[in-house]
Amino acid sequence: MVVVMAPGATPADVEAVVYLVQSAGGQAFVSRGLSRTIVGLVGDVADFEALNLGSLPGVLQVIRVSVPFKLVSREHHPDRSVIRVGGVPIGPGTLTVIAGPCAVESYEQTLEAARLARSAGAALLRGGAFKPRTSPYSYQGLGEEGLRILAAVRAETGLPVVTEVIDPGSVGMVASYADMLQIGARNMQNFALLQAVGSAGKPVLLKRGFSATIEEWLSAAEYIAQRGNLDIVLCERGIRTFETATRNTLDISAVPVAQRLSHLPVIVDPSHSGGRRDLVVPLTRAAIGVGADGLMIDVHPEPKMALCDGDQALPESDIREIADIVVSMPPLLGRSLTLPAEAAGQVPAGV
Amino acid sequence: MVVVMAPGATPADVEAVVYLVQSAGGQAFVSRGLSRTIVGLVGDVADFEALNLGSLPGVLQVIRVSVPFKLVSREHHPDRSVIRVGGVPIGPGTLTVIAGPCAVESYEQTLEAARLARSAGAALLRGGAFKPRTSPYSYQGLGEEGLRILAAVRAETGLPVVTEVIDPGSVGMVASYADMLQIGARNMQNFALLQAVGSAGKPVLLKRGFSATIEEWLSAAEYIAQRGNLDIVLCERGIRTFETATRNTLDISAVPVAQRLSHLPVIVDPSHSGGRRDLVVPLTRAAIGVGADGLMIDVHPEPKMALCDGDQALPESDIREIADIVVSMPPLLGRSLTLPAEAAGQVPAGV
Amino acid sequence: MVVVMAPGATPADVEAVVYLVQSAGGQAFVSRGLSRTIVGLVGDVADFEALNLGSLPGVLQVIRVSVPFKLVSREHHPDRSVIRVGGVPIGPGTLTVIAGPCAVESYEQTLEAARLARSAGAALLRGGAFKPRTSPYSYQGLGEEGLRILAAVRAETGLPVVTEVIDPGSVGMVASYADMLQIGARNMQNFALLQAVGSAGKPVLLKRGFSATIEEWLSAAEYIAQRGNLDIVLCERGIRTFETATRNTLDISAVPVAQRLSHLPVIVDPSHSGGRRDLVVPLTRAAIGVGADGLMIDVHPEPKMALCDGDQALPESDIREIADIVVSMPPLLGRSLTLPAEAAGQVPAGV
Amino acid sequence: MVVVMAPGATPADVEAVVYLVQSAGGQAFVSRGLSRTIVGLVGDVADFEALNLGSLPGVLQVIRVSVPFKLVSREHHPDRSVIRVGGVPIGPGTLTVIAGPCAVESYEQTLEAARLARSAGAALLRGGAFKPRTSPYSYQGLGEEGLRILAAVRAETGLPVVTEVIDPGSVGMVASYADMLQIGARNMQNFALLQAVGSAGKPVLLKRGFSATIEEWLSAAEYIAQRGNLDIVLCERGIRTFETATRNTLDISAVPVAQRLSHLPVIVDPSHSGGRRDLVVPLTRAAIGVGADGLMIDVHPEPKMALCDGDQALPESDIREIADIVVSMPPLLGRSLTLPAEAAGQVPAGV
Repeated sequence: MVVVMAPGATPADVEAVVYLVQSAGGQAFVSRGLSRTIVGLVGDVADFEALNLGSLPGVLQVIRVSVPFKLVSREHHPDRSVIRVGGVPIGPGTLTVIAGPCAVESYEQTLEAARLARSAGAALLRGGAFKPRTSPYSYQGLGEEGLRILAAVRAETGLPVVTEVIDPGSVGMVASYADMLQIGARNMQNFALLQAVGSAGKPVLLKRGFSATIEEWLSAAEYIAQRGNLDIVLCERGIRTFETATRNTLDISAVPVAQRLSHLPVIVDPSHSGGRRDLVVPLTRAAIGVGADGLMIDVHPEPKMALCDGDQALPESDIREIADIVVSMPPLLGRSLTLPAEAAGQVPAGV
Repeated sequence: MVVVMAPGATPADVEAVVYLVQSAGGQAFVSRGLSRTIVGLVGDVADFEALNLGSLPGVLQVIRVSVPFKLVSREHHPDRSVIRVGGVPIGPGTLTVIAGPCAVESYEQTLEAARLARSAGAALLRGGAFKPRTSPYSYQGLGEEGLRILAAVRAETGLPVVTEVIDPGSVGMVASYADMLQIGARNMQNFALLQAVGSAGKPVLLKRGFSATIEEWLSAAEYIAQRGNLDIVLCERGIRTFETATRNTLDISAVPVAQRLSHLPVIVDPSHSGGRRDLVVPLTRAAIGVGADGLMIDVHPEPKMALCDGDQALPESDIREIADIVVSMPPLLGRSLTLPAEAAGQVPAGV
Repeated sequence: MVVVMAPGATPADVEAVVYLVQSAGGQAFVSRGLSRTIVGLVGDVADFEALNLGSLPGVLQVIRVSVPFKLVSREHHPDRSVIRVGGVPIGPGTLTVIAGPCAVESYEQTLEAARLARSAGAALLRGGAFKPRTSPYSYQGLGEEGLRILAAVRAETGLPVVTEVIDPGSVGMVASYADMLQIGARNMQNFALLQAVGSAGKPVLLKRGFSATIEEWLSAAEYIAQRGNLDIVLCERGIRTFETATRNTLDISAVPVAQRLSHLPVIVDPSHSGGRRDLVVPLTRAAIGVGADGLMIDVHPEPKMALCDGDQALPESDIREIADIVVSMPPLLGRSLTLPAEAAGQVPAGV
Repeated sequence: MVVVMAPGATPADVEAVVYLVQSAGGQAFVSRGLSRTIVGLVGDVADFEALNLGSLPGVLQVIRVSVPFKLVSREHHPDRSVIRVGGVPIGPGTLTVIAGPCAVESYEQTLEAARLARSAGAALLRGGAFKPRTSPYSYQGLGEEGLRILAAVRAETGLPVVTEVIDPGSVGMVASYADMLQIGARNMQNFALLQAVGSAGKPVLLKRGFSATIEEWLSAAEYIAQRGNLDIVLCERGIRTFETATRNTLDISAVPVAQRLSHLPVIVDPSHSGGRRDLVVPLTRAAIGVGADGLMIDVHPEPKMALCDGDQALPESDIREIADIVVSMPPLLGRSLTLPAEAAGQVPAGV
């Protein structure tokens, strides 16, 4: 940390800072300038934060220079991680596609969507049984019945299942069906939920909150990691800005930035970020181009009948273009498409 | 709702919209223009949303024109509500101050802070026992021990207690100690938690999420109201913007806007919005000026020793100015300060 | 400035920073920590910026700790300034109201609006002859004819004139009519225009850009001051955020923040920030409460006939409330309403 | 346009809207619902805007449903345009790279940067002679001397020149040297400047303002087009958001959105958006992936000596990767790299 003293700070003000830092077991180095004095702190940031140095007389500003997360950072784990979900890898060297319906509506709809997902190159099936919705009057999902459907479709198609959990009290139940637990954007700072999934023994897909900084996102991942679970995949899905032409603004730069700060894989959701079906294909290409480790795409057999977010789900007619992209682009970046586990001999429609 | 057809929409495209709306039990009125055709929809919005009209051929845009909340809206309840917390009113005609420490650290610190709160004109005591923090390495609160301290300080001072709850599983326990349950900004869209406090039988203080629109804030209140609990107070506490001079940007306009849309009381937190002690007094005056129904202010007997957010807590030396303001300004707006319940004969320090 | 070295920086990397800083005539103080080394720089920031220290090997981050403006800062001029416009003061101790029509449309409309402005307590008349509009198809103003009308209305009412200039080439012409030159929000970083008004010999009203930080706003003021003109009044008029319930989000905290950083007066425009007539009165009270040195309010004799921003202009029926507020509230903050120069014996309608 | 009546609007309120619209030469279609009445308007939007319908009694909201730009829209010109700059095409089917130093510092530096630009695959040379800077104490450029250097380097290398103009008064002078006039982000709504370049007879590169919506960006282009100049290229360069890890947030979705709304080419600046050298390569790949018609990249022979934005300029060692990308990726999207005009036989270093 760096403490910047105000222009009128007295020598006693500076000494007070030094004294407190040393009392807390740290070291303080004073740089006196013509108009500013700066104190560099060496030691444990958590100890220094408890000192409330910003409240001392003569202190203008306290600047933190190390990151508030450790277990998920590359400083402590320089190599990028590969996370396995039901045997399917997500990480460097591969491009892994997760696809499926936004909401599980029925066995037939989910099975049909899973087939579309495979055609699009997906190795993992997504589908929501619990849907957090802005309005209490919107469709809230099938609940545990939806999880049973997902498990049945997994048995049929061989695709491991990624599904959202929204309540700490139901983490165990959801984990008994799912291969990967998803934390949605609105729950990214639901710390009770983060701690619960940290103890659940299943990989976690952590969506970025739509107004979370990258640092807050990684701090949320740290909550999960602290409970002993480092099988975390980060998912960029758009942030809230002033622009209204798209539902959110896909922060494409967040992918390489997060990959430099953290060893965890980073994937992109091109469906929810734009909220427009006509943007899914170009944003998929952008995500692969920027170096994402995977994609999460909404597909629905009949988008106009979808109970949730039908405006962005891809119909069958658009699947082939995705399938082409996920096969042809990754080799330019030294990656290859992750094929479905039990069907490694099959190739997606686009090949 | 209004459906705007694309420039090249065919008559059949328009008919398809009309047909679907009528099939769903609604009425559709077509306005044909030179370059645009518009279809006005009359009926139940929820029915129309399930139609996914935005996915139909020839449809450019679907515009919703009614609000997604009902129970908390002034359309359904034109008079502004007064909510009572341990007998203390919050609503039109009064200015009610909630004050106390950001975090409960000990009985002595909380009792001393409660005395400062009374001096500042507070009729309710705030204090956090469960602290949701961005970093898992920051102070997380005393938990149930903190709640026992709050209850003891209430017994000593007569101030009803407002405290945060962060986990649906502990709502019952927290409600057994608290007079009012606070939902923090990060949990504003934690729907499982909203539903739990909706059933807990205690008034709720709902902080606005730092990147929630006013409409989303009121929709979150609707989740609580749906469970039968209309004793909700809204608290504006700053939104996330590009400006970094303040921790958040206090959206002062949100107070009159929310008061026009909803019958619920709206208060302001001048401490967390700015995140700077030197802004608490001017933002308090701004909040009273704009017509807030109350204030929520951090006070701490020794801010530089505070374990949480010490940069913004007001020390005793600043309390008198707050006490002056909350007595002198409200009469200009037809309001009067709410005095503490058991101490109606006492007057705050500033009188 | 502070240079933060990366975890793996070598001693040679640190020495390179020290050497370059010393070569540029500065001093460098090194603080070595366990995981980080920090170098504090003392000297001229402009010299250091030319070094591009951020590009050196082993450098993680370069943090600037002094502000990029001098002439307008309180560090160099601790007392807050009073600016005079045609004899009318704006600054500490007073509340000065500028009011008038958004756009000058005719002599009659402007004269009538000026009378409304006086009734509202205004000592200065605003009115736009050149209107920068987002769409080229919107009304663009009367041009020089509008300036002649403003001058005629000044002769009739005694109110000095504040009007916008949008092109460096017409600054001299506008200055020949106006008592104060306004720089609009969209032109806040039109540096050619800032320099032109800096040399024009007339006070300047500098509106904050709707996405400018406070630091950028003060840097824009510094451009004007550099040309020798320190008669600058800052005007907060709302910033662009994700919230759509109001046209912009009034950043009420910016008033005390800017007043602490700069000696220049800071006023608030409650009309353009909200963009809604029903918010003008509450935001006016909030602005006075927060400690603004003045107000800038749109008034129009017939808002529904206004050619520009009619949605926010106050009709005569609302004027009395403003007049009451600007007389009754300022004394609570140690201020008094600035009365019109030639009419010091008159009092506004609200008294 | 659509007028939404308030719940309590009377039949007379609705009739007033209809009457005014018809008086203005338009048609009004009334849709009466249970809780809302909607009036659809057909006719000239500019006429309706002058009516200030939002100010009428009983009117809740006025919604505009057509875009405020015409000449640059695809509604009026469905085929996407190809713009030629000194003979070099920018538009569909090609990928055109503009590269060069942020600021022209000397003939040698500019010539060397131009050679790097060619190596990177550039067909056009960028370089700033007039630099709009936030602080008046930052480097402001060489002025006309910089333009002479650019012209000399063009003569030497054959690369047409793109350079920024910041003052309407100097547009003619700059146009006498440049092949394409650049409008920078801060001047995107400097309407006097837009009109001046609209009459200058040279193609224009219009950067998106860092807080401009896509609609405002296209409206700014409309200002240029209105003066008879349709040779406009749009450049996305990042928007201002809450995220501070990058200087701005590249709005990658804006490329396909703008290409759907407008027939003008859209390029991306991966250097200024991130403001970090380590993001230039991944953002270049993302831009090509999303379907951009071109790129604008900062290169500098010695970034650590750069007088402006050295943190983001690419050194020679990174050029080869860009050269590889711009050759290998475009064919996947049906595009090919635009080769420099006079050197069509040469191929960039990466081939």
